[in-house]
Amino acid sequence: MAATSGALGSAERTAPQFVSWREFGLLELDPILTHALDAFSENGFHGATVRDLAGRVGVTVPALYYHYESKEAVLVTLLDAAVNDLVDRVTAAVADGRDDVVARFANAVDALVLDMTHRAKRSALDSEVRHISPDNRRAYAATRKRLETIMLGLVRGGVDSRVFDVDDIEETVRALLGMCRSVARWYRLDGPLTPDEVARRYTVIALRIVGYAPDTPGDEGR
Amino acid sequence: MAATSGALGSAERTAPQFVSWREFGLLELDPILTHALDAFSENGFHGATVRDLAGRVGVTVPALYYHYESKEAVLVTLLDAAVNDLVDRVTAAVADGRDDVVARFANAVDALVLDMTHRAKRSALDSEVRHISPDNRRAYAATRKRLETIMLGLVRGGVDSRVFDVDDIEETVRALLGMCRSVARWYRLDGPLTPDEVARRYTVIALRIVGYAPDTPGDEGR
Repeated sequence: MAATSGALGSAERTAPQFVSWREFGLLELDPILTHALDAFSENGFHGATVRDLAGRVGVTVPALYYHYESKEAVLVTLLDAAVNDLVDRVTAAVADGRDDVVARFANAVDALVLDMTHRAKRSALDSEVRHISPDNRRAYAATRKRLETIMLGLVRGGVDSRVFDVDDIEETVRALLGMCRSVARWYRLDGPLTPDEVARRYTVIALRIVGYAPDTPGDEGR
Repeated sequence: MAATSGALGSAERTAPQFVSWREFGLLELDPILTHALDAFSENGFHGATVRDLAGRVGVTVPALYYHYESKEAVLVTLLDAAVNDLVDRVTAAVADGRDDVVARFANAVDALVLDMTHRAKRSALDSEVRHISPDNRRAYAATRKRLETIMLGLVRGGVDSRVFDVDDIEETVRALLGMCRSVARWYRLDGPLTPDEVARRYTVIALRIVGYAPDTPGDEGR
Protein backbone atom coordinates (compact mmCIF):
# COMPACT_ATOMS: atom_id res chain seq x y z
CA MET A 1 0.00 0.00 0.00
CA ALA A 2 1.07 3.58 -0.51
CA ALA A 3 3.47 4.79 2.14
CA THR A 4 2.68 7.88 4.17
CA SER A 5 5.56 9.61 2.47
CA GLY A 6 3.69 9.30 -0.80
CA ALA A 7 0.61 10.98 0.61
CA LEU A 8 1.38 14.34 -0.92
CA GLY A 9 1.58 13.03 -4.42
CA SER A 10 5.27 12.28 -4.85
CA ALA A 11 6.00 10.34 -7.99
CA GLU A 12 7.37 7.26 -6.20
CA ARG A 13 5.78 4.06 -7.44
CA THR A 14 5.44 0.61 -6.04
CA ALA A 15 5.13 -2.63 -7.98
CA PRO A 16 1.67 -3.53 -9.32
CA GLN A 17 -0.65 -4.66 -6.52
CA PHE A 18 -2.17 -7.63 -8.38
CA VAL A 19 -1.24 -11.04 -9.76
CA SER A 20 -3.43 -10.94 -12.88
CA TRP A 21 -5.13 -7.80 -14.21
CA ARG A 22 -8.45 -9.66 -14.24
CA GLU A 23 -8.30 -10.77 -10.61
CA PHE A 24 -9.55 -8.49 -7.87
CA GLY A 25 -9.30 -9.54 -4.25
CA LEU A 26 -10.67 -7.52 -1.36
CA LEU A 27 -9.21 -4.04 -1.37
CA GLU A 28 -6.64 -3.96 1.42
CA LEU A 29 -6.10 -0.52 2.88
CA ASP A 30 -4.84 0.64 6.25
CA PRO A 31 -7.66 1.42 8.74
CA ILE A 32 -7.47 5.17 8.20
CA LEU A 33 -7.80 4.85 4.44
CA THR A 34 -10.58 2.26 4.74
CA HIS A 35 -12.71 4.54 6.89
CA ALA A 36 -11.78 7.64 4.89
CA LEU A 37 -12.97 5.94 1.71
CA ASP A 38 -16.37 5.36 3.34
CA ALA A 39 -16.54 8.88 4.75
CA PHE A 40 -15.58 10.61 1.48
CA SER A 41 -17.99 8.40 -0.47
CA GLU A 42 -20.89 9.14 1.85
CA ASN A 43 -20.35 12.84 2.48
CA GLY A 44 -17.87 14.10 -0.08
CA PHE A 45 -14.44 15.50 0.76
CA HIS A 46 -15.74 18.66 2.40
CA GLY A 47 -18.56 16.86 4.20
CA ALA A 48 -16.15 14.51 5.96
CA THR A 49 -14.37 16.20 8.85
CA VAL A 50 -11.05 15.12 10.36
CA ARG A 51 -12.94 14.58 13.64
CA ASP A 52 -15.35 12.28 11.81
CA LEU A 53 -12.46 10.34 10.24
CA ALA A 54 -10.69 9.94 13.58
CA GLY A 55 -13.97 8.87 15.22
CA ARG A 56 -14.57 6.18 12.59
CA VAL A 57 -11.04 4.84 12.97
CA GLY A 58 -11.29 5.01 16.76
CA VAL A 59 -8.25 7.24 17.24
CA THR A 60 -7.77 10.83 18.41
CA VAL A 61 -7.41 13.68 15.93
CA PRO A 62 -3.69 14.14 16.82
CA ALA A 63 -3.13 10.42 16.26
CA LEU A 64 -4.63 10.76 12.81
CA TYR A 65 -2.40 13.74 12.07
CA TYR A 66 0.58 11.62 13.09
CA HIS A 67 -0.11 9.39 10.08
CA TYR A 68 -1.39 11.93 7.55
CA GLU A 69 -0.55 15.58 7.64
CA SER A 70 -4.02 16.65 6.50
CA LYS A 71 -7.40 15.40 5.35
CA GLU A 72 -6.28 16.27 1.86
CA ALA A 73 -3.24 14.00 2.21
CA VAL A 74 -5.59 11.12 3.03
CA LEU A 75 -7.68 11.77 -0.10
CA VAL A 76 -4.56 12.17 -2.25
CA THR A 77 -3.21 8.84 -1.00
CA LEU A 78 -6.48 7.13 -1.90
CA LEU A 79 -6.66 8.79 -5.32
CA ASP A 80 -3.03 8.05 -6.18
CA ALA A 81 -3.39 4.39 -5.26
CA ALA A 82 -6.62 4.20 -7.29
CA VAL A 83 -5.24 5.71 -10.47
CA ASN A 84 -1.94 3.85 -10.28
CA ASP A 85 -3.69 0.52 -9.83
CA LEU A 86 -6.01 1.34 -12.71
CA VAL A 87 -3.19 2.29 -15.08
CA ASP A 88 -1.13 -0.76 -14.04
CA ARG A 89 -4.05 -3.06 -14.78
CA VAL A 90 -4.84 -1.45 -18.12
CA THR A 91 -1.16 -1.62 -19.07
CA ALA A 92 -1.01 -5.33 -18.20
CA ALA A 93 -4.28 -5.94 -20.07
CA VAL A 94 -2.93 -4.26 -23.20
CA ALA A 95 0.31 -6.29 -23.06
CA ASP A 96 -1.82 -9.42 -22.70
CA GLY A 97 -3.37 -8.64 -26.09
CA ARG A 98 0.07 -9.11 -27.68
CA ASP A 99 0.11 -7.79 -31.26
CA ASP A 100 -3.64 -8.07 -31.88
CA VAL A 101 -4.92 -4.46 -32.02
CA VAL A 102 -8.51 -5.49 -31.36
CA ALA A 103 -7.60 -7.67 -28.38
CA ARG A 104 -5.36 -4.93 -26.95
CA PHE A 105 -8.17 -2.39 -27.12
CA ALA A 106 -10.86 -4.80 -25.87
CA ASN A 107 -8.62 -5.87 -22.98
CA ALA A 108 -8.03 -2.24 -22.01
CA VAL A 109 -11.76 -1.53 -21.84
CA ASP A 110 -12.25 -4.79 -19.96
CA ALA A 111 -9.64 -3.83 -17.34
CA LEU A 112 -11.06 -0.32 -17.06
CA VAL A 113 -14.62 -1.49 -16.43
CA LEU A 114 -13.53 -4.30 -14.10
CA ASP A 115 -11.80 -1.64 -12.02
CA MET A 116 -14.88 0.64 -12.10
CA THR A 117 -17.00 -2.26 -10.78
CA HIS A 118 -14.73 -4.16 -8.38
CA ARG A 119 -13.41 -0.86 -7.05
CA ALA A 120 -16.54 1.25 -7.63
CA LYS A 121 -16.39 3.20 -4.39
CA ARG A 122 -12.72 4.04 -4.75
CA SER A 123 -13.00 4.85 -8.46
CA ALA A 124 -15.95 7.18 -7.84
CA LEU A 125 -13.66 9.31 -5.65
CA ASP A 126 -12.43 10.75 -8.94
CA SER A 127 -15.24 13.33 -8.63
CA GLU A 128 -13.60 14.68 -5.44
CA VAL A 129 -10.33 15.48 -7.19
CA ARG A 130 -11.49 19.04 -7.91
CA HIS A 131 -11.34 19.72 -4.18
CA ILE A 132 -7.62 19.12 -3.81
CA SER A 133 -4.98 21.75 -4.39
CA PRO A 134 -3.30 21.98 -7.81
CA ASP A 135 0.07 20.86 -6.38
CA ASN A 136 -1.39 17.73 -4.87
CA ARG A 137 -3.44 17.07 -7.95
CA ARG A 138 -0.43 17.00 -10.25
CA ALA A 139 0.72 13.39 -9.79
CA TYR A 140 -2.86 12.16 -10.01
CA ALA A 141 -3.56 14.17 -13.14
CA ALA A 142 -0.35 12.95 -14.77
CA THR A 143 -1.19 9.30 -14.16
CA ARG A 144 -4.78 9.85 -15.29
CA LYS A 145 -3.36 11.42 -18.45
CA ARG A 146 -1.31 8.26 -19.06
CA LEU A 147 -4.55 6.30 -19.26
CA GLU A 148 -5.88 8.68 -21.89
CA THR A 149 -2.61 8.40 -23.82
CA ILE A 150 -2.80 4.60 -23.76
CA MET A 151 -6.36 4.65 -25.07
CA LEU A 152 -5.49 7.18 -27.77
CA GLY A 153 -2.63 4.96 -28.90
CA LEU A 154 -4.85 1.90 -29.04
CA VAL A 155 -7.56 3.60 -31.09
CA ARG A 156 -5.00 5.23 -33.38
CA GLY A 157 -3.34 1.84 -33.86
CA GLY A 158 -6.67 0.31 -34.84
CA VAL A 159 -7.44 3.11 -37.27
CA ASP A 160 -3.96 2.84 -38.83
CA SER A 161 -4.48 -0.92 -39.26
CA ARG A 162 -7.91 -0.21 -40.77
CA VAL A 163 -9.73 -2.43 -38.28
CA PHE A 164 -11.25 0.61 -36.52
CA ASP A 165 -13.00 3.51 -38.22
CA VAL A 166 -12.91 6.73 -36.23
CA ASP A 167 -12.95 10.31 -37.50
CA ASP A 168 -12.23 12.19 -34.31
CA ILE A 169 -9.98 10.00 -32.20
CA GLU A 170 -9.55 12.40 -29.28
CA GLU A 171 -13.24 13.10 -28.83
CA THR A 172 -14.07 9.42 -29.23
CA VAL A 173 -11.58 8.42 -26.53
CA ARG A 174 -12.95 11.08 -24.22
CA ALA A 175 -16.51 9.81 -24.75
CA LEU A 176 -15.35 6.24 -24.20
CA LEU A 177 -13.56 7.07 -20.97
CA GLY A 178 -16.53 9.11 -19.75
CA MET A 179 -18.83 6.19 -20.45
CA CYS A 180 -16.61 3.66 -18.65
CA ARG A 181 -15.94 5.94 -15.68
CA SER A 182 -19.65 6.57 -15.17
CA VAL A 183 -20.04 2.90 -14.21
CA ALA A 184 -18.40 3.60 -10.84
CA ARG A 185 -21.24 5.98 -10.01
CA TRP A 186 -24.03 3.39 -10.11
CA TYR A 187 -22.38 -0.02 -9.79
CA ARG A 188 -22.90 -2.03 -6.59
CA LEU A 189 -21.17 -5.37 -6.03
CA ASP A 190 -24.35 -6.68 -4.36
CA GLY A 191 -26.48 -5.68 -7.39
CA PRO A 192 -27.78 -7.97 -10.15
CA LEU A 193 -24.76 -7.74 -12.50
CA THR A 194 -21.32 -9.21 -11.92
CA PRO A 195 -18.26 -7.14 -12.86
CA ASP A 196 -17.52 -9.58 -15.67
CA GLU A 197 -21.00 -9.11 -17.14
CA VAL A 198 -20.74 -5.33 -17.09
CA ALA A 199 -17.22 -5.42 -18.54
CA ARG A 200 -18.31 -7.73 -21.35
CA ARG A 201 -21.22 -5.46 -22.32
CA TYR A 202 -19.13 -2.30 -22.24
CA THR A 203 -16.45 -3.96 -24.34
CA VAL A 204 -19.04 -4.73 -27.03
CA ILE A 205 -20.26 -1.12 -26.90
CA ALA A 206 -16.70 0.21 -27.00
CA LEU A 207 -15.92 -1.84 -30.11
CA ARG A 208 -18.99 -0.34 -31.77
CA ILE A 209 -17.87 3.15 -30.80
CA VAL A 210 -14.54 2.69 -32.56
CA GLY A 211 -16.32 1.34 -35.64
CA TYR A 212 -15.00 -2.19 -35.40
CA ALA A 213 -16.93 -4.38 -37.82
CA PRO A 214 -16.26 -8.06 -37.13
CA ASP A 215 -16.04 -10.23 -40.23
CA THR A 216 -19.13 -12.22 -39.32
CA PRO A 217 -22.03 -9.86 -38.54
CA GLY A 218 -23.29 -10.39 -35.00
CA ASP A 219 -20.01 -11.98 -33.94
CA GLU A 220 -18.93 -9.24 -31.56
CA GLY A 221 -18.34 -11.59 -28.69
CA ARG A 222 -21.89 -11.13 -27.42
CA MET B 1 -37.87 30.40 -12.68
CA ALA B 2 -38.81 27.94 -9.96
CA ALA B 3 -40.84 29.53 -7.20
CA THR B 4 -39.62 29.37 -3.62
CA SER B 5 -42.59 27.16 -2.82
CA GLY B 6 -41.09 24.54 -5.11
CA ALA B 7 -37.81 24.54 -3.26
CA LEU B 8 -38.52 21.35 -1.38
CA GLY B 9 -39.17 19.32 -4.48
CA SER B 10 -42.94 19.60 -4.89
CA ALA B 11 -44.15 18.19 -8.17
CA GLU B 12 -45.53 21.48 -9.49
CA ARG B 13 -44.32 22.28 -12.97
CA THR B 14 -44.03 25.40 -15.02
CA ALA B 15 -44.18 25.69 -18.79
CA PRO B 16 -40.96 24.90 -20.73
CA GLN B 17 -38.42 27.67 -20.29
CA PHE B 18 -37.31 27.81 -23.92
CA VAL B 19 -38.61 28.77 -27.36
CA SER B 20 -36.80 26.05 -29.34
CA TRP B 21 -35.09 23.04 -27.77
CA ARG B 22 -31.91 23.90 -29.69
CA GLU B 23 -31.71 27.50 -28.48
CA PHE B 24 -29.99 28.30 -25.20
CA GLY B 25 -29.87 31.85 -23.92
CA LEU B 26 -28.06 32.93 -20.80
CA LEU B 27 -29.30 30.97 -17.81
CA GLU B 28 -31.47 33.35 -15.82
CA LEU B 29 -31.64 32.55 -12.14
CA ASP B 30 -32.41 34.67 -9.10
CA PRO B 31 -29.28 36.06 -7.39
CA ILE B 32 -29.30 33.44 -4.65
CA LEU B 33 -29.43 30.57 -7.13
CA THR B 34 -26.81 32.17 -9.37
CA HIS B 35 -24.30 32.42 -6.55
CA ALA B 36 -25.27 29.06 -5.09
CA LEU B 37 -24.57 27.42 -8.44
CA ASP B 38 -21.05 28.86 -8.37
CA ALA B 39 -20.49 27.92 -4.73
CA PHE B 40 -21.73 24.33 -5.09
CA SER B 41 -19.70 23.90 -8.29
CA GLU B 42 -16.52 25.17 -6.70
CA ASN B 43 -16.75 23.54 -3.30
CA GLY B 44 -19.43 20.88 -3.45
CA PHE B 45 -22.65 20.94 -1.42
CA HIS B 46 -20.96 20.34 1.92
CA GLY B 47 -18.06 22.68 1.17
CA ALA B 48 -20.39 25.63 0.57
CA THR B 49 -21.71 27.06 3.82
CA VAL B 50 -24.88 29.13 4.22
CA ARG B 51 -22.66 31.96 5.45
CA ASP B 52 -20.62 31.69 2.24
CA LEU B 53 -23.79 31.74 0.11
CA ALA B 54 -25.17 34.79 1.92
CA GLY B 55 -21.80 36.54 1.59
CA ARG B 56 -21.66 35.96 -2.15
CA VAL B 57 -25.21 37.27 -2.60
CA GLY B 58 -24.52 40.21 -0.31
CA VAL B 59 -27.31 39.48 2.14
CA THR B 60 -27.42 38.35 5.77
CA VAL B 61 -27.91 34.70 6.70
CA PRO B 62 -31.45 35.38 8.05
CA ALA B 63 -32.32 37.15 4.78
CA LEU B 64 -31.21 34.07 2.87
CA TYR B 65 -33.32 31.85 5.13
CA TYR B 66 -36.29 34.10 4.37
CA HIS B 67 -36.12 32.95 0.76
CA TYR B 68 -35.00 29.34 1.18
CA GLU B 69 -35.59 27.33 4.30
CA SER B 70 -32.22 25.56 4.08
CA LYS B 71 -29.08 25.16 2.01
CA GLU B 72 -30.54 21.88 0.81
CA ALA B 73 -33.66 23.69 -0.45
CA VAL B 74 -31.40 25.89 -2.59
CA LEU B 75 -29.67 22.86 -4.12
CA VAL B 76 -32.99 21.08 -4.66
CA THR B 77 -34.40 24.12 -6.46
CA LEU B 78 -31.36 24.19 -8.76
CA LEU B 79 -31.50 20.44 -9.40
CA ASP B 80 -35.24 20.40 -10.07
CA ALA B 81 -35.00 23.27 -12.55
CA ALA B 82 -32.06 21.54 -14.27
CA VAL B 83 -33.68 18.16 -14.70
CA ASN B 84 -37.07 19.62 -15.70
CA ASP B 85 -35.48 21.81 -18.34
CA LEU B 86 -33.46 18.85 -19.62
CA VAL B 87 -36.49 16.56 -19.89
CA ASP B 88 -38.60 19.30 -21.50
CA ARG B 89 -35.93 19.87 -24.12
CA VAL B 90 -35.43 16.18 -24.85
CA THR B 91 -39.21 15.74 -25.11
CA ALA B 92 -39.48 18.62 -27.59
CA ALA B 93 -36.51 17.27 -29.55
CA VAL B 94 -38.10 13.84 -29.84
CA ALA B 95 -41.41 15.33 -31.01
CA ASP B 96 -39.45 17.32 -33.56
CA GLY B 97 -38.27 14.03 -35.09
CA ARG B 98 -41.92 13.23 -35.94
CA ASP B 99 -42.30 9.57 -36.96
CA ASP B 100 -38.67 9.00 -37.98
CA VAL B 101 -37.20 6.70 -35.30
CA VAL B 102 -33.61 7.61 -36.18
CA ALA B 103 -34.31 11.36 -36.13
CA ARG B 104 -36.18 11.05 -32.82
CA PHE B 105 -33.26 9.25 -31.21
CA ALA B 106 -30.60 11.51 -32.75
CA ASN B 107 -32.54 14.62 -31.67
CA ALA B 108 -32.79 13.30 -28.12
CA VAL B 109 -29.03 12.80 -27.89
CA ASP B 110 -28.52 16.20 -29.51
CA ALA B 111 -30.73 17.92 -26.90
CA LEU B 112 -29.07 16.00 -24.08
CA VAL B 113 -25.55 16.97 -25.09
CA LEU B 114 -26.53 20.58 -25.88
CA ASP B 115 -27.83 20.80 -22.32
CA MET B 116 -24.63 19.21 -20.90
CA THR B 117 -22.57 21.85 -22.73
CA HIS B 118 -24.65 25.05 -22.60
CA ARG B 119 -25.59 24.25 -19.01
CA ALA B 120 -22.43 22.37 -18.02
CA LYS B 121 -22.08 23.85 -14.56
CA ARG B 122 -25.71 23.30 -13.65
CA SER B 123 -25.82 19.81 -15.18
CA ALA B 124 -22.68 18.78 -13.29
CA LEU B 125 -24.55 19.44 -10.02
CA ASP B 126 -26.08 16.01 -10.60
CA SER B 127 -23.09 14.60 -8.68
CA GLU B 128 -24.26 16.46 -5.56
CA VAL B 129 -27.66 14.80 -5.52
CA ARG B 130 -26.38 12.07 -3.20
CA HIS B 131 -26.04 14.68 -0.48
CA ILE B 132 -29.72 15.57 -0.31
CA SER B 133 -32.25 13.71 1.82
CA PRO B 134 -34.33 10.93 0.23
CA ASP B 135 -37.56 12.95 0.56
CA ASN B 136 -36.13 15.92 -1.28
CA ARG B 137 -34.49 13.68 -3.85
CA ARG B 138 -37.77 12.04 -4.87
CA ALA B 139 -39.06 14.61 -7.40
CA TYR B 140 -35.62 14.91 -8.95
CA ALA B 141 -35.17 11.16 -9.20
CA ALA B 142 -38.63 10.75 -10.74
CA THR B 143 -37.93 13.32 -13.45
CA ARG B 144 -34.48 11.86 -14.07
CA LYS B 145 -36.16 8.48 -14.46
CA ARG B 146 -38.46 9.96 -17.12
CA LEU B 147 -35.38 10.75 -19.21
CA GLU B 148 -34.24 7.13 -18.97
CA THR B 149 -37.73 5.94 -19.91
CA ILE B 150 -37.77 8.22 -22.96
CA MET B 151 -34.38 6.90 -24.11
CA LEU B 152 -35.41 3.28 -23.51
CA GLY B 153 -38.52 3.85 -25.62
CA LEU B 154 -36.52 5.39 -28.44
CA VAL B 155 -33.98 2.58 -28.56
CA ARG B 156 -36.67 -0.08 -28.25
CA GLY B 157 -38.59 1.62 -31.09
CA GLY B 158 -35.49 1.53 -33.27
CA VAL B 159 -34.85 -2.13 -32.50
CA ASP B 160 -38.50 -3.02 -33.21
CA SER B 161 -38.27 -1.20 -36.56
CA ARG B 162 -35.00 -3.05 -37.26
CA VAL B 163 -33.03 0.15 -37.83
CA PHE B 164 -31.13 -0.30 -34.54
CA ASP B 165 -29.44 -3.48 -33.39
CA VAL B 166 -29.08 -3.74 -29.62
CA ASP B 167 -28.98 -6.85 -27.46
CA ASP B 168 -29.21 -5.35 -24.02
CA ILE B 169 -31.32 -2.21 -24.32
CA GLU B 170 -31.26 -1.22 -20.64
CA GLU B 171 -27.50 -1.49 -20.26
CA THR B 172 -26.95 0.28 -23.57
CA VAL B 173 -29.15 3.21 -22.52
CA ARG B 174 -27.36 3.43 -19.19
CA ALA B 175 -23.98 3.51 -20.95
CA LEU B 176 -25.26 6.13 -23.39
CA LEU B 177 -26.62 8.37 -20.66
CA GLY B 178 -23.40 7.98 -18.65
CA MET B 179 -21.38 8.98 -21.70
CA CYS B 180 -23.50 12.04 -22.43
CA ARG B 181 -23.70 13.15 -18.80
CA SER B 182 -19.92 12.96 -18.43
CA VAL B 183 -19.64 15.87 -20.89
CA ALA B 184 -20.82 18.28 -18.19
CA ARG B 185 -17.77 17.40 -16.13
CA TRP B 186 -15.17 18.66 -18.63
CA TYR B 187 -16.97 21.01 -20.99
CA ARG B 188 -16.23 24.73 -20.85
CA LEU B 189 -18.07 27.26 -23.02
CA ASP B 190 -14.80 29.18 -23.48
CA GLY B 191 -12.99 26.02 -24.69
CA PRO B 192 -12.17 25.04 -28.29
CA LEU B 193 -15.42 23.20 -29.09
CA THR B 194 -18.87 24.72 -29.53
CA PRO B 195 -21.88 22.94 -28.01
CA ASP B 196 -23.08 22.14 -31.53
CA GLU B 197 -19.78 20.47 -32.42
CA VAL B 198 -19.80 18.32 -29.30
CA ALA B 199 -23.46 17.41 -29.76
CA ARG B 200 -22.86 16.42 -33.39
CA ARG B 201 -19.95 14.14 -32.45
CA TYR B 202 -21.82 12.48 -29.61
CA THR B 203 -24.83 11.91 -31.85
CA VAL B 204 -22.62 10.04 -34.34
CA ILE B 205 -21.17 7.95 -31.48
CA ALA B 206 -24.65 7.31 -30.04
CA LEU B 207 -25.90 6.03 -33.40
CA ARG B 208 -22.97 3.64 -33.50
CA ILE B 209 -23.75 2.44 -29.99
CA VAL B 210 -27.29 1.48 -30.97
CA GLY B 211 -25.98 -0.33 -34.05
CA TYR B 212 -27.47 2.01 -36.60
CA ALA B 213 -25.99 1.18 -40.00
CA PRO B 214 -26.79 3.91 -42.50
CA ASP B 215 -27.51 2.66 -46.01
CA THR B 216 -24.43 4.34 -47.45
CA PRO B 217 -21.33 3.38 -45.43
CA GLY B 218 -19.69 6.46 -43.96
CA ASP B 219 -22.88 8.50 -44.33
CA GLU B 220 -23.50 8.91 -40.61
CA GLY B 221 -23.85 12.66 -40.80
CA ARG B 222 -20.15 13.17 -40.11
